[in-house]
Amino acid sequence: MLAKEYADRLSRVRKAMADKGFGALVVCDPANLFYLTGYNAWSFYTPQCLLVGPDGAPHLFARAMDALGAAYTCNLDDDHIHGYPEDLVHRPDVHPFDWIADVMRGLVPAGEVIGVECDCHYFSPRGYQALERGLPANRLIDCAELVNWVRVVKSSYEIEQLRIAGSIAEHAMRAAFNALRPGRRQCDVVAEIMAAQTCGTPEHGGDYPALVPLLPTGKSAGTPHLTWTQGVFSTGEATTVELAGTYGRYHAPLARTVMLGEPPSRLLDTSKVVAEAMQATLAAMRPGVDGGTVHKAFDRVIKPHGLQKDSRIGYSIGIGYPPDWGERTVSLRPGERTELAAGMAFHVILGIWMDDWGYELSEPVVVTDTGVEKLTDLPHELTVWR
Amino acid sequence: MLAKEYADRLSRVRKAMADKGFGALVVCDPANLFYLTGYNAWSFYTPQCLLVGPDGAPHLFARAMDALGAAYTCNLDDDHIHGYPEDLVHRPDVHPFDWIADVMRGLVPAGEVIGVECDCHYFSPRGYQALERGLPANRLIDCAELVNWVRVVKSSYEIEQLRIAGSIAEHAMRAAFNALRPGRRQCDVVAEIMAAQTCGTPEHGGDYPALVPLLPTGKSAGTPHLTWTQGVFSTGEATTVELAGTYGRYHAPLARTVMLGEPPSRLLDTSKVVAEAMQATLAAMRPGVDGGTVHKAFDRVIKPHGLQKDSRIGYSIGIGYPPDWGERTVSLRPGERTELAAGMAFHVILGIWMDDWGYELSEPVVVTDTGVEKLTDLPHELTVWR
Repeated sequence: MLAKEYADRLSRVRKAMADKGFGALVVCDPANLFYLTGYNAWSFYTPQCLLVGPDGAPHLFARAMDALGAAYTCNLDDDHIHGYPEDLVHRPDVHPFDWIADVMRGLVPAGEVIGVECDCHYFSPRGYQALERGLPANRLIDCAELVNWVRVVKSSYEIEQLRIAGSIAEHAMRAAFNALRPGRRQCDVVAEIMAAQTCGTPEHGGDYPALVPLLPTGKSAGTPHLTWTQGVFSTGEATTVELAGTYGRYHAPLARTVMLGEPPSRLLDTSKVVAEAMQATLAAMRPGVDGGTVHKAFDRVIKPHGLQKDSRIGYSIGIGYPPDWGERTVSLRPGERTELAAGMAFHVILGIWMDDWGYELSEPVVVTDTGVEKLTDLPHELTVWR
Repeated sequence: MLAKEYADRLSRVRKAMADKGFGALVVCDPANLFYLTGYNAWSFYTPQCLLVGPDGAPHLFARAMDALGAAYTCNLDDDHIHGYPEDLVHRPDVHPFDWIADVMRGLVPAGEVIGVECDCHYFSPRGYQALERGLPANRLIDCAELVNWVRVVKSSYEIEQLRIAGSIAEHAMRAAFNALRPGRRQCDVVAEIMAAQTCGTPEHGGDYPALVPLLPTGKSAGTPHLTWTQGVFSTGEATTVELAGTYGRYHAPLARTVMLGEPPSRLLDTSKVVAEAMQATLAAMRPGVDGGTVHKAFDRVIKPHGLQKDSRIGYSIGIGYPPDWGERTVSLRPGERTELAAGMAFHVILGIWMDDWGYELSEPVVVTDTGVEKLTDLPHELTVWR
């Protein structure tokens, strides 16, 4: 069933390559490898990449021990899987991309321009320089997230994966609501959230999210990306909870804020404004509307209340690997000209991060023909435990 | 108490910088940022770095929303924390390192050579090119894991962190032994392991490991880096379990193999040879012995049994962030000339990965004045559940 899906993805990538004049494309982002071939393993800490030519099957390059079992997940035959020798790992004098470039010279005709993922997480300057040195008859050009942009509009298969991820996100957030109590250690609460994320539901087991659960609490709640400690949660403090449900590498991220005890009026007031802003934001999202216009709908609600948010209010989601579940393409922010289209998916995250407090409310959604479909169904208000 | 520790680390890094003729060093590896300043957040998915000069406090560069709360974890004052504007995130036309280079021009004198971490996970070719373009009066040179090499020998404070991580690893592996049963979904078993890793012990809460638990099972057990599915464990199949105990970002990785049901003689025989090889390997480890010699002690045991292992049998460990808990410095493999020294820490991992089966046994250790100290205490045999 997925054969047609993969063929379609590859043909869309090739069309984009042709438009840019690329004779070949070097893909290093693990999410893009998964998108194009299904290859899926925690092997991205040593160099790996996919070479996409204008026709035929792509070529996967990975460390020998990973290449050996690559066929367990990817749709390539042995002739298209190349394992570089183990003794190239972590050497000061040679680099796996020296070896990869040697093989690529036999696969890419001289003179062809090669698109390269120059700003993805697992491709280093040293790897790039090795590729450049090893392919003197080709010109390397930053492909500017070519595959990521192809991924922006999801197929119906992908939307189904996202719906399942949404059901797991909802399950995990309920686990967070039940676990967060005064006097409990942060690590013990996170353990329950992670267990819920990983078990998933009886029908659909959970996969690992690209980010661990983030639960900044108390004064640090204004710092969104702090990870947990063994400190305890306290009555009188609010905690922002950001997590994801993950299914088959597809992510539905979700954020809520939990108050232990009576909420201060500042927080309660903010929560009401943000809930209203969420309604306005979601109502503005439909095909043909650009990201900047969506942001305006948000801004129009919060501005009169003296609230301010410098960071974007959403970004494209789908497949993700650590350290990020965002696709690094469309953002909902001032000036974003990309128009929404049916099949796009976003994490709409309204995070208000102040010096010593914060409030978060988010919603993962898919753009439909007429608006958005929410992937989770939890109240938009401040969660209070008394 | 840690002030002296940080001062000592910085002075060792500066000595290495002076030896290499670097007037400044750009550090991007999150483990190195943590080592030098304590900075700790899941913020490495957008560009960040530390600039170390020949004196004074280093300068931290991060996204505005992360810079705001950086002081919660790092030992720098506000004058040394620089937040780049939010609208630089994920732009096709501008890059955060353009902004960072602009600030750096005012901090690094013209003519100075700048060492750069050119092969770490979160520094992209595009970031490197922006730095090069923005610092035309300086020459950038790959620093070849300068800080990682300083990290190789641990202080007594660090060894204490590793011991705690070891106690958590042991706890998590026992959870794996108790959870792995025929008919259970892989995801449900992993959920229990992750919960144990995250709770840690009553005295010491667990931190997130740099890798998720890896449990390739059955025919796929020959593929070390596969992650779990929702498939069920079966009687008659072996599973290799690789996980870590993590405490305050310090890692003690640990691997064992679990057989559900009667083990085939091939696996049982291999387990005995590997246990003997582990004894021989650990016995060979002490200050003054080089990594290649340690590998020989291993090879001498397995060769007569017709076993073969192409990959290294160990690597330096300590602080880790996703995707790797290795330090990317010393490996235990043929030809490794680095001599062991007291205070080094290793994950000695004897993984035999065949086409359709595998066996793993590992031990995290610290090198002492006379040999090694084991960080965990579990039997070295094949774990069998009948």
